[in-house]
Amino acid sequence: MTTIALAGAGNIGTGLLRLLSTTSAGKLLRAKTVLVRDPNKSRPGLPEGIAVTTQASDLWNDPEVSVVVELLGGVTDSLLVVSSALKAGKSVVTANKNLMAEHGPELFALARKHGVCLGFEASVCGGIPIIRTMTEALRGDRLNTVEGIVNGTTNYLLTRMSEERATYAQCLVDAQRLGFAEPDPEYDVSGKDAVCKAGILATLAFGGYVDFRQVPTAGIESLELEDIRQAEAMGYRIKLIASARRTAAGFDAEVGPVLLPLAHPLASIRMEDNAVLLESDFLVKTLLSGKGAGPNPTALSLLADLLDLAEGRGRVPSAEHPFLGKAVELLGSQASQSRFYVRTKVPDRPGVLAQVAGLFGKKGISIASVLQPEVPGSTGETLVPLILTTHTTIRSRLNEVLAQLEAEGWGTNVVLRIQED
Amino acid sequence: MTTIALAGAGNIGTGLLRLLSTTSAGKLLRAKTVLVRDPNKSRPGLPEGIAVTTQASDLWNDPEVSVVVELLGGVTDSLLVVSSALKAGKSVVTANKNLMAEHGPELFALARKHGVCLGFEASVCGGIPIIRTMTEALRGDRLNTVEGIVNGTTNYLLTRMSEERATYAQCLVDAQRLGFAEPDPEYDVSGKDAVCKAGILATLAFGGYVDFRQVPTAGIESLELEDIRQAEAMGYRIKLIASARRTAAGFDAEVGPVLLPLAHPLASIRMEDNAVLLESDFLVKTLLSGKGAGPNPTALSLLADLLDLAEGRGRVPSAEHPFLGKAVELLGSQASQSRFYVRTKVPDRPGVLAQVAGLFGKKGISIASVLQPEVPGSTGETLVPLILTTHTTIRSRLNEVLAQLEAEGWGTNVVLRIQED
Repeated sequence: MTTIALAGAGNIGTGLLRLLSTTSAGKLLRAKTVLVRDPNKSRPGLPEGIAVTTQASDLWNDPEVSVVVELLGGVTDSLLVVSSALKAGKSVVTANKNLMAEHGPELFALARKHGVCLGFEASVCGGIPIIRTMTEALRGDRLNTVEGIVNGTTNYLLTRMSEERATYAQCLVDAQRLGFAEPDPEYDVSGKDAVCKAGILATLAFGGYVDFRQVPTAGIESLELEDIRQAEAMGYRIKLIASARRTAAGFDAEVGPVLLPLAHPLASIRMEDNAVLLESDFLVKTLLSGKGAGPNPTALSLLADLLDLAEGRGRVPSAEHPFLGKAVELLGSQASQSRFYVRTKVPDRPGVLAQVAGLFGKKGISIASVLQPEVPGSTGETLVPLILTTHTTIRSRLNEVLAQLEAEGWGTNVVLRIQED
Repeated sequence: MTTIALAGAGNIGTGLLRLLSTTSAGKLLRAKTVLVRDPNKSRPGLPEGIAVTTQASDLWNDPEVSVVVELLGGVTDSLLVVSSALKAGKSVVTANKNLMAEHGPELFALARKHGVCLGFEASVCGGIPIIRTMTEALRGDRLNTVEGIVNGTTNYLLTRMSEERATYAQCLVDAQRLGFAEPDPEYDVSGKDAVCKAGILATLAFGGYVDFRQVPTAGIESLELEDIRQAEAMGYRIKLIASARRTAAGFDAEVGPVLLPLAHPLASIRMEDNAVLLESDFLVKTLLSGKGAGPNPTALSLLADLLDLAEGRGRVPSAEHPFLGKAVELLGSQASQSRFYVRTKVPDRPGVLAQVAGLFGKKGISIASVLQPEVPGSTGETLVPLILTTHTTIRSRLNEVLAQLEAEGWGTNVVLRIQED
C-alpha cells in the first residue's frame, strides 16, 4: 500500500479521491492527508478519515507519505510544495502545466538528485495519455512534429463562431455562462495556457528543455467572424494550434491561430475537445483526441502516474531526461516560412489596392488571393477590410510589409499562418 | 544489453532491425538470430553479423537470447515458437493477432508460470498504442465501450465507395492493385481480421477472456453502392466497426458494418487509417487514430514492448491479467437492441409495401423511414430495392421478420445496425 498526500482539495483532488474509493486502485493507494487553505470550509467530497491540514510541511515531513500530489496551481506555492517534497525523498505527481513549463528543469534535477519520480501526465490535455504516448509508446523513434489543440476554451469559441456564424463577443459570453470560459478569459484566449503545454510537448519532442517564454504566441482575441467565414470559403478552418517541429533549419515551436485545410485531422476537433497529432520517422501520423480538461479525466491521468509509483514502475529521471537535456534554441517566428492569411483595413478609394499590392511585390512576396468585400455605403475615406493570402514567404519579410501598412494609420492587421497538407 | 531473436524476417522484421540500427534503441537491444523458412533467399534488409537459422529451437535454446520476437503469422508455427520460448524462460513480443485472440489464455498462463513477459502491442492497430493505453493509461478506470475501425482494407474500400460513388467491385480491384487489399481479400472483407482484434480489445475492456469465435461477425461483401448512398442521404456513414460494450444486460461484442452519424468521431476516419474510441467511467471519450498497419508503425509498437523488457519494465502477467480472467459470456447478437437499416427486394406491384409493412407491424417493430427508389422500366414482377429503417428493436425480433421476407423468395436482405449519438 502506497500512502499519498494531496496538496489541494478542489474538483480534481476530490475526483481523484473518488476514483480511489470506487475502483480497485484503492487497494494500492491510500490518501492520508490533504493540504487546504481554509480549514473551516465544508468539504463534502472528502472521505471520512482523511486528515486535513493547513501546514504544507505536514505533507513532506510525514514518513508514512511516499507520494505528494500537487494540485495547487500557480507557480509559487506549488514550487515550494513540489521542491520540498522532492528534497524530502517523496515522489510527486502533478497536474500543473505552469510549474512544469517554467520549472521543469530544476524539478527534474531535484528528482534525479533525490532518486524519486515526478509524474506530469495530467499537466497536458487532461484525459489524453499524450505524455506517456510520447515518452513510452514512441520512445524508440524520433518525433518530428507535434501539433495540437490543447486549450478547450479557445476551441469551444472557434467552433461556435464557425458553426453558428456568431461573433467572438457573443460566443465568449455564452462560454462563460456555460463554464467553458473563465470570468477573466485572458489566460486562455491569449494563448498563455496553450504555450505552457507547447513548452512541455516541445521539450519531450526535441529531447531538451524548451522554455515556453521563447515560443512565439498569439491568441484568438483579434479574430473576427469575417476571418472564420473567409477562411472557410477558402477551404480552411481556423484553430488555435500549439506546434513543435523539427525542420531542416532547426527547431520551431509556435502557438497561434492557424488556417488548417478542412481535411486536416485537427480541423474536425470540435467544441472543448483537445487533440494532439504526432509525427515520427517510423509512425507517419497518430492522433490522440478527447476531453482535455475536467476533474475526472485529469484525475484519471493522475491515477495512472500514481499507479506507476504504487507498482514500483515510476522512472527516476535519467541524465537523458528531456527536461535535463541541453536547452533548445528555437528558430523564432521571424525565420519561419509559411503561407499567410492577412486581414488589413484600407481606405475605399482608387489606387489603394495597387499601393498595397506594390508593398508586397517590392518585398518579393507573391499574393495568392485577394478579397475586398463590398461594404454598403462606404465612401472614399471609409476603412474597408482587405483580405490577402500569400504564397510561401518568410515571416520577417511579411512583417516588414505589415509595418509599412501600419504606418499608414489604417489600423492593425490580423496575420495567420496557413498550413498546407 | 538485451539480446533478442526474431522468428520471421519479412517487412516487419527488417523494419524492426532498421529501427534498432538507426535509433538509440540499439544501445539497449541487440538482434542476434533470425529464423527463416528459406535460408538461400537473398535478404538485403538483414544487417551484417546477424545469424540466420531454419531451426526454430535455435531461438529458445540459446542462453544469450532473452526475448523472442514472433513475426511468423498464422497460429501453427507461431504457437510452437511462442510457447516453446515461454517454457524456456524467454519473454516474447508478438505482432500476431490470430495467435493472441485464439491462444491468449494458454500463452499468458505459460508466461505467468515461467515468470516471463508477453508483449502484444503490435497485434492490434500497428502504430496506435491502443494496448498500452487500455492497460496502462486507463488502468485506474472501468472501460465501458471500445469501438474501432481496426481493419485498413475495409475502411479503404468503404471510403472510396463513399467518396467516388464507385462500386465495391471497382474499388476492390483498385485496392488490390495499390496493395491495400490482398489478392484473396476474404480474410479482411469478411471481418475475420477485425474479429481477432475485437476479441483482444474486448478481453482487455472486460477483464476476462473473450473468445473471438463467439463474437457475431459480418463483413462488407454484400454492401452495395446504393447502401452507402442511402445511408449518407440519411446523415450516416457506413464503417466496419469492431465493438465491445458493457451494457445493463451484459457484455456485448460485435463486428460488422454500422451506420454511424456523420458527427461520430469514427465517421471521419478515412482510407486505410485505423482508430479506436474508448469510453470509461471517468474519461468520457478518447480517440486514438493513425496508421493501423505497415512495417514501420508495427515495428515501432514491437520496439516499445522490447524497450519495456530491456529496461526491466516488462510485466509478468498477474493472476488478474484479463487473458487469465474468467471467460466472458457475451449476450450474442440476438439479444442486442438497436435501430436497424434493412435493404430488401420486393416485386414492384400493388399491395407489396403494405404486406412488408404488415410483417414489421405484427412483430411490434416500428418503421422509422421507407424508401423505394423508382426503377425505370420496372414491371409488376421486377424485384426493386426497398430500404427501411426501424426504431429501436431487438435483433431476434427483426430476424423473424427477415426470415419471413426471405421465405417469399425475393432474395436476401442486407441488415446493418444504426448507431445513435
